[in-house]
Amino acid sequence: MPTEDTEPTSERLSRAVWRTVAEDGIEGTSVRRVAQHAGCTTGLIMHHFGSRGAMLKHAREVLYKRTEERANIAENTHQSPRFRLKEVLCGVLPLDTERKHEARVWAGFAATALSDDAMRKIHVSGNRRWLHRIARIISTCTPDASTDSVKISAIQLIAATEGLALLASLDPETYSAEIQESILAMEVDNTLRKMASPPSAHIE
Amino acid sequence: MPTEDTEPTSERLSRAVWRTVAEDGIEGTSVRRVAQHAGCTTGLIMHHFGSRGAMLKHAREVLYKRTEERANIAENTHQSPRFRLKEVLCGVLPLDTERKHEARVWAGFAATALSDDAMRKIHVSGNRRWLHRIARIISTCTPDASTDSVKISAIQLIAATEGLALLASLDPETYSAEIQESILAMEVDNTLRKMASPPSAHIE
Repeated sequence: MPTEDTEPTSERLSRAVWRTVAEDGIEGTSVRRVAQHAGCTTGLIMHHFGSRGAMLKHAREVLYKRTEERANIAENTHQSPRFRLKEVLCGVLPLDTERKHEARVWAGFAATALSDDAMRKIHVSGNRRWLHRIARIISTCTPDASTDSVKISAIQLIAATEGLALLASLDPETYSAEIQESILAMEVDNTLRKMASPPSAHIE
Repeated sequence: MPTEDTEPTSERLSRAVWRTVAEDGIEGTSVRRVAQHAGCTTGLIMHHFGSRGAMLKHAREVLYKRTEERANIAENTHQSPRFRLKEVLCGVLPLDTERKHEARVWAGFAATALSDDAMRKIHVSGNRRWLHRIARIISTCTPDASTDSVKISAIQLIAATEGLALLASLDPETYSAEIQESILAMEVDNTLRKMASPPSAHIE
């Protein structure tokens, strides 16, 4: 890893934006605060990004890039499709410091997107790509399943993962990494089991 | 419903705070904006609530009250335990306009709680009460299940519901009310089925 002296300015500023969003939340991310973290003037931040909005968009892109890179690695591992599915989903759970930061940044952007239409469009398009990816991996686990059944299962797993990520980000005591992983494993198994053999009995 | 003239001031201001948080998000909720919605001076708002922080705390309390009232009604219905479980969980899904507003307010507070420790404590304590409630209803469905198994199932259902609520709030086109309800019903059925008969086969 380069020291502060040799690290290119763009990387240093990018890291400062990321750190500010992760620590202070979206609304706490001012140009002044990023400049403090980067150890530079607010002028340099404005010169580099152009606006606070562009700075936030950059942080959003960094988040997508990190999530996608981790998912690509997990998807290309030489393991069973079921293992790959669980690994890709685990990529967005706050299981370690790096993913904890990512989950905080993700939750902040999700909330911002609720009342900011431009941000909402970016969020929705990213989420649909994610849905497409999870559906694709489920298909490799259950090649005979219908498109509808695969889509519903993908939504189930994504909802379970996003819900767990939010719960655990806010209350890590109750939702430890161990609990998150075991619940996700159960969700994956239940989903694949149900797809392999649709239920015959009604529960009341 | 009282008209603006006969409605008590406290109710009118409460509605204005709620509306502002639901429409403009937490960060967009300024004293000025609430005064605009209430059709009064910012002085009256400050006199009534004391501070912006107290105003936001009030909105958080309104959200809990609404959620709990709906859950109490659903839990006391004369239906099967399984039906009651699904009904209580549906209370926090954005299935109609009222619940859409609530889900937006909830997501905003969840994100704010990530970088605001006082808000986080309120959020965590509310979430633990919710976990306790869902576990209690699951116990009535599966009286022989162990405490651990009930807790894990409660977390599964809460995560699935919160995840769905967030996905649907941001992308209602992909996650329609119909899809949300059918996925929640499946989650409830899968959870209760699994508790009734633990899996014997391993899926790979």
